[in-house]
Amino acid sequence: MIRACLTALALVLPLAATAGEPRGTGDLGVVIERASGSVLVVDQSDRAALCRVEGLGDLSHASLTFSPDERFAYVFGRDGGLSKVDILTCALTARIVQAGNAIGGAISDDGRLVAVSNYEPGGVKVFDADTLEQVADVPMGSKTVGLADVPGSRFAVATWDTGEVWVLDHSADPADPRITRVGGVGANPYDALMTADGRTYIVGLFGEKGLTTLDLWQETPQPRRILPDYGKNQADLPVYKMPHLQGWTLAGSTYALPAVGLHQVLWADAATGRETGRTDVAGQPVFVTARPDGRELWVNFATPDNGTVQVIDSMTQGVKQTLQPGAGILHMEFTPRGREVWLSARDDDKVVIYDTRTYRKVGEIAARAPSGIFFTARAHRTGL
Amino acid sequence: MIRACLTALALVLPLAATAGEPRGTGDLGVVIERASGSVLVVDQSDRAALCRVEGLGDLSHASLTFSPDERFAYVFGRDGGLSKVDILTCALTARIVQAGNAIGGAISDDGRLVAVSNYEPGGVKVFDADTLEQVADVPMGSKTVGLADVPGSRFAVATWDTGEVWVLDHSADPADPRITRVGGVGANPYDALMTADGRTYIVGLFGEKGLTTLDLWQETPQPRRILPDYGKNQADLPVYKMPHLQGWTLAGSTYALPAVGLHQVLWADAATGRETGRTDVAGQPVFVTARPDGRELWVNFATPDNGTVQVIDSMTQGVKQTLQPGAGILHMEFTPRGREVWLSARDDDKVVIYDTRTYRKVGEIAARAPSGIFFTARAHRTGL
Repeated sequence: MIRACLTALALVLPLAATAGEPRGTGDLGVVIERASGSVLVVDQSDRAALCRVEGLGDLSHASLTFSPDERFAYVFGRDGGLSKVDILTCALTARIVQAGNAIGGAISDDGRLVAVSNYEPGGVKVFDADTLEQVADVPMGSKTVGLADVPGSRFAVATWDTGEVWVLDHSADPADPRITRVGGVGANPYDALMTADGRTYIVGLFGEKGLTTLDLWQETPQPRRILPDYGKNQADLPVYKMPHLQGWTLAGSTYALPAVGLHQVLWADAATGRETGRTDVAGQPVFVTARPDGRELWVNFATPDNGTVQVIDSMTQGVKQTLQPGAGILHMEFTPRGREVWLSARDDDKVVIYDTRTYRKVGEIAARAPSGIFFTARAHRTGL
Repeated sequence: MIRACLTALALVLPLAATAGEPRGTGDLGVVIERASGSVLVVDQSDRAALCRVEGLGDLSHASLTFSPDERFAYVFGRDGGLSKVDILTCALTARIVQAGNAIGGAISDDGRLVAVSNYEPGGVKVFDADTLEQVADVPMGSKTVGLADVPGSRFAVATWDTGEVWVLDHSADPADPRITRVGGVGANPYDALMTADGRTYIVGLFGEKGLTTLDLWQETPQPRRILPDYGKNQADLPVYKMPHLQGWTLAGSTYALPAVGLHQVLWADAATGRETGRTDVAGQPVFVTARPDGRELWVNFATPDNGTVQVIDSMTQGVKQTLQPGAGILHMEFTPRGREVWLSARDDDKVVIYDTRTYRKVGEIAARAPSGIFFTARAHRTGL
């Protein structure tokens, strides 16, 4: 009988094991493993990997966003795949291939809608966050870039082919968004950025110099050009990559942003949109990321300088630290209150962890060709 | 045998049930039930109460802070009680009475230390966040107020009797903090506020007019007086309550704050510390709280106007909505991206939930004399 009972118990215990010890999700995160179509779930407090979820398709250019409960990650793959990952149970909950070629996505401020911007066939598709069933399809006659959430069940996106910004308002009817189109944004938007308050949408242009901002607090937002000289300055200058606008940062009332093709970080006044200074750095900057308190900016670089990371003092605007955290540093993510920074060292197959006060390495985690690192605190912020 | 097995299973199943379905903690929250020494754990997504935890002592003036994983709430009671509540399993994990009379607390940016500021016997005590064992005891010869976390395992606190600010730096040795004392802050600090970047510490004064700010980015912070006329203006004016500085808000580069004893909200330029305008409102304001996007400010009032809530447009500085959400509105908490606001209606024994775009009530939850509402997203922010 004891054996029979133990067998019966064995049938029950795995359930308990699946449910697992209760755990909070506020200190979890997801690391994209770009070459293997997998993600690694990590624990900030233990500086450890928890598990790997595979089968997410082409993650060579991937991003993700979190559900408001910080339990589910929606992963946007280059191949048009939209995957929903349960980071608590370490399972791929749902996966669809919703387009031929996609570039990113966002989740609405009520957590109910997930939107994806597509290169092929273009436009934006919107899905139910629970089921991934399609809720709306908004063709725009263009590739779309820089999709971001806007407060009030809205999304903003820029159109590469037509130089517009579309704001989709799903608050009245999720399936039939009210559309605001703003034209004259500029030639070939290639990326865009939403400020943390959801007010200012900044569009980067590939087809001309400068950037365009929109004030979404206005009833009919008007394009406003800033940094009119921003872009490629010399015809013979090798630009390895147009910097993502996610590489921008706002420290106080000053933007810090990567120069295009130059070994410099630019400073611009947020109110006037005018350049106010430059800092020489170790290579072509990719991400200029403020530590959450804004006191320092951490900068990584394009190849061949992508083994270096520099720290800039936001008060003096001078470089105060030069670090060599590993080979192929692709991304940096701060813990929410800025105590540590996690860096993906793609070519070392690991994530390295630094204390942001002592600049000492405090941990590392094995990962397969890691790229983006995303902590769950993003769930609570607009534009991420 | 079947019955015996079922008995054996019954012994196992409650464990699985305790572990419960896995759930994220990013959308949870805790409501203080001030009269009954209990807290209600709530779910933002479902607009529902999950469970009640009792036995927390005197919560007539209570606050709390969350662990970085958003699983544990540290509740600071008026009676010197420090309670650790597991909001996932709904259990009181640990409780100590660490002083005779306490006023609030904070958690360090590495999540390892919980500090409490005390009226009786004064000073600050620091505890291990896991076990609640005492780590450090810092007598200051004074009652202390306005304790807040500062980046880098630090805490700031103001001293009522001696008019100082102490900054405790626990980064080298948790048990023996390095202490920076700043004198000349002003007569009888009664509360203080840390800005979200952990840079500016604002001290309210009971013994004289005006407020004092400290720039904690400076090596030796110097007291700087702002709003020199702030305080009680007329000898015969009834002031029901000195407003908490947590009732202040920073919208863009402008502070909005409750006037003392007047039916007005004051506006001040953050850079100069000078008053720039006033808005007439329905009563003596208590909390002036910015919606997370900064577009609106929601204001509640002292008795006899505490059934009213007003919404101010931060661009026009005019009142745009007057609501009557319930009786005895003590506190307001926005969902992290600002889609809803939860209000505690103490005298109606309920929490009411409003959509911040339509101003319509979208839910309510029974609660016993609710006061403070705290959502877990606070875990990721400095100074909360």
